[in-house]
Amino acid sequence: MEIKSYLKEQRLLVENAFDTLIPDAEGDFRDHIEAMRYSLLAGGKRVRPILCLAAARAIGRENIADQDILPVACALECIHTYSLIHDDLPAMDNDDLRRGKATNHVLHGEAGAILAGDGLLTWAFDLLSNPDHGNLSPERKLRITHCIARAAGSFGMVGGQALDIAYENTEFPFATLQTIHRSKTGALITASVLAGGIAAGGDKKQLAALEQYGNRIGLAFQIVDDLLNATATTAQLGKAAGSDAALGKATYPAYFGTKETRSLAQKAVKEANQCLADFDDKARPLRLLADYIYTRSH
Amino acid sequence: MEIKSYLKEQRLLVENAFDTLIPDAEGDFRDHIEAMRYSLLAGGKRVRPILCLAAARAIGRENIADQDILPVACALECIHTYSLIHDDLPAMDNDDLRRGKATNHVLHGEAGAILAGDGLLTWAFDLLSNPDHGNLSPERKLRITHCIARAAGSFGMVGGQALDIAYENTEFPFATLQTIHRSKTGALITASVLAGGIAAGGDKKQLAALEQYGNRIGLAFQIVDDLLNATATTAQLGKAAGSDAALGKATYPAYFGTKETRSLAQKAVKEANQCLADFDDKARPLRLLADYIYTRSH
Repeated sequence: MEIKSYLKEQRLLVENAFDTLIPDAEGDFRDHIEAMRYSLLAGGKRVRPILCLAAARAIGRENIADQDILPVACALECIHTYSLIHDDLPAMDNDDLRRGKATNHVLHGEAGAILAGDGLLTWAFDLLSNPDHGNLSPERKLRITHCIARAAGSFGMVGGQALDIAYENTEFPFATLQTIHRSKTGALITASVLAGGIAAGGDKKQLAALEQYGNRIGLAFQIVDDLLNATATTAQLGKAAGSDAALGKATYPAYFGTKETRSLAQKAVKEANQCLADFDDKARPLRLLADYIYTRSH
Repeated sequence: MEIKSYLKEQRLLVENAFDTLIPDAEGDFRDHIEAMRYSLLAGGKRVRPILCLAAARAIGRENIADQDILPVACALECIHTYSLIHDDLPAMDNDDLRRGKATNHVLHGEAGAILAGDGLLTWAFDLLSNPDHGNLSPERKLRITHCIARAAGSFGMVGGQALDIAYENTEFPFATLQTIHRSKTGALITASVLAGGIAAGGDKKQLAALEQYGNRIGLAFQIVDDLLNATATTAQLGKAAGSDAALGKATYPAYFGTKETRSLAQKAVKEANQCLADFDDKARPLRLLADYIYTRSH
């Protein structure tokens, strides 16, 4: 299995599912839905949905069909996309460019972008709780919903973004940077892996291993993001390069320098793979995904 | 039963539940949680939670405890509060005053207010899906979650707010005003009633009656809100009076004048009560609540 073709195939699987799982821009609310679709369909690597699908297959205990996991996978991408829309707002990071395209508020106005984000977040929970989607039991759907709500909310992604903004242009201890990373980025990545594991009926030990794996790749992911923001060009990133430094944000490279930061990312990926020691070859995509996160840093 | 003492008693029941169901402002995310709590605890009539509790009791088929319904009731208030925070933002209605107090963004900044809203919305789904809260079956919790997500999202409240803003200072047909009212305000009020009915195990016919009741009081509620905005003072409202006219918003009084508008509210309340014809005396609070909505217009 070659990682690039695997990623492309999985990305297309997720994007095809959007056709049935994301509303079309029609009817009374077409402009608002168009604003939601604009950011959701603007590209992206679809890392969270792909992790969710890969974790479900790694468990492999039951015959879980893609159709059962895809609503969860799409919900994760809705949540990720809403967070980007709100983070880019003038009142937050004030970014005009994302994935090489105008950010949502540049095209749809601030009010439109706030509501597009609100709409995507709420749609995620509509997908997760929809009794007509997939064959997972209500109990399992509810557990997945709660896992994702906790990770996306005030003790996870939203809380992390609040800290990130509160600490702009201030000096703070490394432990605080870790808290910000863990909550802002790590929590939803871990939840993506865990949600896949719950969907596939993973046992306690398997879910604990997946959670640890998620924590380590979440960390690696954020470290690499920091690195890329500091070292890549705007054209390479599709968003403003160097924006962290401009906003006076604390980052791994700011603490450790580029070289040491890269070796910390490598260490986190190695630990992630160690968490999968008890899994068989069905976890191979998860292992490749961990390696892929590190290779992005070059 | 006197409506005022009933409302006060039920309001306190809901607000006491916040003590256990809403996070305390402590730990890493205390400032963010404080911003959420500020608006949630700033008062309000708690109409949606009270409707939810009253609808559950109106079914009365099973011995459903308040403890089973209160997480749903509190989730509804979190969603309502988040919508107020986002609606008040400078990019939306730009209101400085709400319930006689400074709006969230005046105190916590725009970024803080956006995130407080995001946090409350997500916490609502955390409450609804939390396996540790209440004794409702996972199936029933999931149905409630989906009912509320649909009503709060792009085909309900969020979509309605997007239309409301898009149509500011424009002329549009009365049918569009109805769509805005039904989605922006009516949908979540109907969902509050329906969620209580689902929680209490209402049958298909009962839930259909509750849905119709919810639609009619939702309409009455919005008509009365329009009336109060046009006729009451800022001191009476605790928010800027006359703001609809200032923003060039279409309202019932703008279409029909004050007198005709009042009689339309009365008609909606009468129809709401007719929907409850097959319910026994356990639905009396729902009947009083419908009447109460109309009396607010005087």
